[in-house]
Amino acid sequence: MVARKKNAFYAQSGGVTSVINTTACGLIETARKNGVKVYAGRNGIIGALTEDLIDTSKEPAKNIANLRYTPGGAFGSCRYKLKNHEQSKSEYERILKVFDAHNIGYFFYNGGGDSHDTVHKISQLSQVMGYPLTCIGIPKTIDNDLPFTDTCPGFGSVAKYIATSVREVGYDLESMAASSTKIFVLEVMGRHAGWIAASAGLAAERIGEHPHIILFPEIIFDEEKFLAKVDNCVKKFGCCSIVASEGIRNKEGIFLSDLGCIDAFGHVQLGGVAPIVAKLIKHKLGYKYHWAVADYLQRAARHIASKTDIDQAYAMGKTAVEYALQGKSNIMVTIVRKSNKPYRWTIGWKMLEEVANVEKKMPLDFITRDGFHITNACHEYLSPLIQGEDPPLFKNGLPQFTKLKNPSVRKKIKEEFKLKK
Amino acid sequence: MVARKKNAFYAQSGGVTSVINTTACGLIETARKNGVKVYAGRNGIIGALTEDLIDTSKEPAKNIANLRYTPGGAFGSCRYKLKNHEQSKSEYERILKVFDAHNIGYFFYNGGGDSHDTVHKISQLSQVMGYPLTCIGIPKTIDNDLPFTDTCPGFGSVAKYIATSVREVGYDLESMAASSTKIFVLEVMGRHAGWIAASAGLAAERIGEHPHIILFPEIIFDEEKFLAKVDNCVKKFGCCSIVASEGIRNKEGIFLSDLGCIDAFGHVQLGGVAPIVAKLIKHKLGYKYHWAVADYLQRAARHIASKTDIDQAYAMGKTAVEYALQGKSNIMVTIVRKSNKPYRWTIGWKMLEEVANVEKKMPLDFITRDGFHITNACHEYLSPLIQGEDPPLFKNGLPQFTKLKNPSVRKKIKEEFKLKK
Repeated sequence: MVARKKNAFYAQSGGVTSVINTTACGLIETARKNGVKVYAGRNGIIGALTEDLIDTSKEPAKNIANLRYTPGGAFGSCRYKLKNHEQSKSEYERILKVFDAHNIGYFFYNGGGDSHDTVHKISQLSQVMGYPLTCIGIPKTIDNDLPFTDTCPGFGSVAKYIATSVREVGYDLESMAASSTKIFVLEVMGRHAGWIAASAGLAAERIGEHPHIILFPEIIFDEEKFLAKVDNCVKKFGCCSIVASEGIRNKEGIFLSDLGCIDAFGHVQLGGVAPIVAKLIKHKLGYKYHWAVADYLQRAARHIASKTDIDQAYAMGKTAVEYALQGKSNIMVTIVRKSNKPYRWTIGWKMLEEVANVEKKMPLDFITRDGFHITNACHEYLSPLIQGEDPPLFKNGLPQFTKLKNPSVRKKIKEEFKLKK
Repeated sequence: MVARKKNAFYAQSGGVTSVINTTACGLIETARKNGVKVYAGRNGIIGALTEDLIDTSKEPAKNIANLRYTPGGAFGSCRYKLKNHEQSKSEYERILKVFDAHNIGYFFYNGGGDSHDTVHKISQLSQVMGYPLTCIGIPKTIDNDLPFTDTCPGFGSVAKYIATSVREVGYDLESMAASSTKIFVLEVMGRHAGWIAASAGLAAERIGEHPHIILFPEIIFDEEKFLAKVDNCVKKFGCCSIVASEGIRNKEGIFLSDLGCIDAFGHVQLGGVAPIVAKLIKHKLGYKYHWAVADYLQRAARHIASKTDIDQAYAMGKTAVEYALQGKSNIMVTIVRKSNKPYRWTIGWKMLEEVANVEKKMPLDFITRDGFHITNACHEYLSPLIQGEDPPLFKNGLPQFTKLKNPSVRKKIKEEFKLKK
């Protein structure tokens, strides 16, 4: 008797990006070509736990193809972290039970550091329980903090958005500086690592170009040194543009965003480094300022996504399926940089046990000695990641994205599963 | 004896836009074709007062052509308002003196409401003093608040940026809402009029699409009604996206941004409606939120500018010169909408005395009865303004803009002019 062809389970995890659906597109298109049915978890791993599966085989090919151009997570993502085997035993068992009920032989998890840890744990458990399951982690994170992969899909597009925005704003600021606003502060994501802040540095090709100052979470915020630098910029260039990571901290180790501000309800306002930095400058140096907080705009901006990032996101989804069919398991797919000029890359893989709980930090030689900008080495690393454009179709002046039908798979398990709070 | 051919003076005024340089491009290219030399004011009208003129005739044609793609104000703009004839007598006289010294017979002022008032006053004074001067105002303002013109160059591109961003963010928010962030608030410019906030409404083509709620400065912020609407959206759509104008006020007439927040220096933080609205929701309804403040990003975003806006900005500069050469004076050029579907427009003009101190408000029938969205009438008005794309050239993954050489014209007047504080 021939074994029934196994189905695949795919889920998106954590904060979404403008290209995570591109990975889904590559994965589903490749699985279809190989006759593998893909069930997606509705709202990520929650879908596996609650047996809330989406049958992507019922989705028209055109919709799947359009995922390439659609930001956000088309099947829903979630912030739901599985702990170790003891603490989350019932959850791991439930996942395998659901997989078993739906003849799932392939598990693809598309997320950041925590997700790869989850894949690894499920892989281990499936071996212990004798349930044959091919487990593959696919990187996705704008934070760019996964090890062993040259970059993480999602990051290059944020980098392109931030560098583009900073360059544009620089032209605006310079026009106004003689009689009005002299300071502009842009707050960007990246609480623990300065990759996104660093990417703003790509906008400056010559000395004096914007941004003038980058504030990295890796560098202690030294108020005095910072203010001296701002003042110097204004005197030299007539204005000063600053890109601040949301995660900068002062000498006492306190997040600047926590220094805060007491709001109308008597609560400390968290978040909002940009206004704090701007007001500090106004208070100490007297310069007129503007500030912006990009927040979700930066990670959703599919209209200005990087073609390189899109190509890599697609290739990761595609290759993940190919690896799975070759019998590789318990791996994370990676991007391997083969050369810098011209930038050449390929897809590779790494065993998950090596990946789990390793964080990729900004190398210290990526930050200039004064702590306020990126070095040539950083520029060389980042620049290839923002190359090329591949915008969505515009109709009526606006980008056209795809909303999937997302039909449910009929449930097969009687017991409901209660999610932990 | 044949009179010496007159030169033209062109200045940019007030907050710049992503297409004000496109108007400069249309104006200078047309002047060149007609043998008129254009002097630009360095930093706007300040350049006229201080005799700091830029000789645009020395700028290579390629640079002028590239102005079409470059955001900000290429000659510098300023916030410097001339008052009435009595209060600012010395300034008006100085301007005419500088014009006389440089054989200037055409005055083009590219700005918002105040600028057209200035043009009008200079026109009057030149007549009184018997100095022949052709005076033409050219609209520019993202606020879209000038009368008699269908729209103002700069606005359509902000509208396209905001609608695009809101649509993108909507896809992001929906992915996360099941287990995480349910609220997203985007703060947009427009302190007195809700045109920019309204433009976000273009992103929603069907009920339930983003943004779910728009907060207009024209509508008193009713906390209770607002919170009920937010809660309803979350229950109905799983999440709620809100676009808030920076200028919204409560029942007491106080700007929400002034309700503020006491910062680390003990000062009231102004600005930042988005965090205030987001925290109000968290406080009263308990939903997790994200917020963004677009600030300068929205008006500098040349990469996603509206082709319609760009075409109109260029045509205004071009036609301003043509009108001047036809002998029209003391006018503001306007955009005239000839039909809606298809959108057809032409350039027209209006006498400045009719323009001065008239503000174009949002018609009340552009806002839905509940005060939280735009009507079909508004959609029909706004939609044509964001049609088409005309991105700059991208190189190394980033948009390429032009920095002009901006050579100075030799000064001819001995006395220096001291600017008022």
